[in-house]
Amino acid sequence: MFTSLRTEEAERDGGYGATAKRMGELVQEIPGFLGEDSAQTPGGLSVTVAYFRDLAGIEQWRDHAAHREAKERGRAHWYERYSLHIAKVEHSSGFERSNAAD
Amino acid sequence: MFTSLRTEEAERDGGYGATAKRMGELVQEIPGFLGEDSAQTPGGLSVTVAYFRDLAGIEQWRDHAAHREAKERGRAHWYERYSLHIAKVEHSSGFERSNAAD
Repeated sequence: MFTSLRTEEAERDGGYGATAKRMGELVQEIPGFLGEDSAQTPGGLSVTVAYFRDLAGIEQWRDHAAHREAKERGRAHWYERYSLHIAKVEHSSGFERSNAAD
Repeated sequence: MFTSLRTEEAERDGGYGATAKRMGELVQEIPGFLGEDSAQTPGGLSVTVAYFRDLAGIEQWRDHAAHREAKERGRAHWYERYSLHIAKVEHSSGFERSNAAD
């Protein structure tokens, strides 16, 4: 779970959006990456939940060279603050309108 | 972690916003509730991460009468789909610009 508040610089800086898009592509190559949900409130607050099969995938993504470089640029320019939580899913449920079984 | 896509009805319906606001107040009364991060992309995608000290708090919130009623109205009117994951935080880190220690 990655929650972040972006700087005004990130809002203006074309580099942020291009890097975020590239990271969204690269993470899909990590073995065990299952997908992600992300929402952005205008003004800079983002909440992203990325799902991995196991910790090995998370560690591979954490150590990925291009991702490390992006994180450094993020801390230098694009993020006012962020928090990251690694968590183990214990229970899941869901709902779809077309198939209203919960 | 609660990810949802709202219906067009929810966008128009004043009841959704009022109920969401009320739930945001009620959850704060749950023992062990630690806070939440939420972002909404215009168009209806929301990602909310609510933090609880333990499973007992999550169960109390799941079973809260007003919350149960809101969930029923949500499934009937406001949600196209949602997914809910209960997860145990194993590692946390963060960053703040004013205090650039990670």
